Amino acid sequence: MSFSKHCQDDVFFMQEAIKEAEKAAELDEVPIGAVIVKDNEIISRAHNLRETLQDATAHAEILAIRQACKTVGSWRLTDCTLYVTLEPCPMCAGAAILSRLKKVVFGAKDPKGGACGSLINILSDERFNHQPEVTGDVLADKCGDILKKFFQDKRK
Amino acid sequence: MSFSKHCQDDVFFMQEAIKEAEKAAELDEVPIGAVIVKDNEIISRAHNLRETLQDATAHAEILAIRQACKTVGSWRLTDCTLYVTLEPCPMCAGAAILSRLKKVVFGAKDPKGGACGSLINILSDERFNHQPEVTGDVLADKCGDILKKFFQDKRK
Repeated sequence: MSFSKHCQDDVFFMQEAIKEAEKAAELDEVPIGAVIVKDNEIISRAHNLRETLQDATAHAEILAIRQACKTVGSWRLTDCTLYVTLEPCPMCAGAAILSRLKKVVFGAKDPKGGACGSLINILSDERFNHQPEVTGDVLADKCGDILKKFFQDKRK
Repeated sequence: MSFSKHCQDDVFFMQEAIKEAEKAAELDEVPIGAVIVKDNEIISRAHNLRETLQDATAHAEILAIRQACKTVGSWRLTDCTLYVTLEPCPMCAGAAILSRLKKVVFGAKDPKGGACGSLINILSDERFNHQPEVTGDVLADKCGDILKKFFQDKRK
């Protein structure tokens, strides 16, 4: 029962991350969205804003982590879970370790830059001082389709 | 001659990064400092502010990259060099790739978390879409001594 409940939660919160990705698309940003959850409540939500802010670090995950740190008043996000529509890159996977996130749940895999199993696997490397749990492939098709549509529209 | 000139520049700018590390120590932050240089001029400078800001992403490099993006008005830091007193972690090495930095120059190696050759080597991985040049070991002893002294004082 608890596994089933857990999966339902993952789907629910990934749907919220997808809503963030859709906000990014509306801004003509690569559509990636994230939410951070603590005690079953969303404590921060963000979407990619690289172009809008002209900031190379303004990935959805970094913005969500910074906001969550503000919300909890600590750089330690112990007991928090990050939901993100695309497999995190090295920067964002690194930030997940640094912020001591309990868990990272991602949607689509990123074969070109993913750092959670696709190209490298930072989160499971026991030489770093923290290893978040990782779950991938949650609503992967839906998360990937939003990205595919965005890049298809760009080529028109 | 040009190699000698180049090395002198690296030492000069690393000394500026060390000044930033010393500012961090004064704030009781782990003393790591960074500057970003374009056309032989410092366009941003920052030091670790994780505790002060209670922000897990507030490493010297991330703060310097964000400031440099603001200064040049673009997320692309092409033709810019990052000088940092400690070998970047995965988050910061990833940000160096994402911001298209031309070069990363670091001081001391980080055997516990370094992502530029010590534990992993993100910057030289040709599967990512950009590879900054990398030079390590610039004023490494001085950069390392500041960190050693900080942690020794903590234990007193």
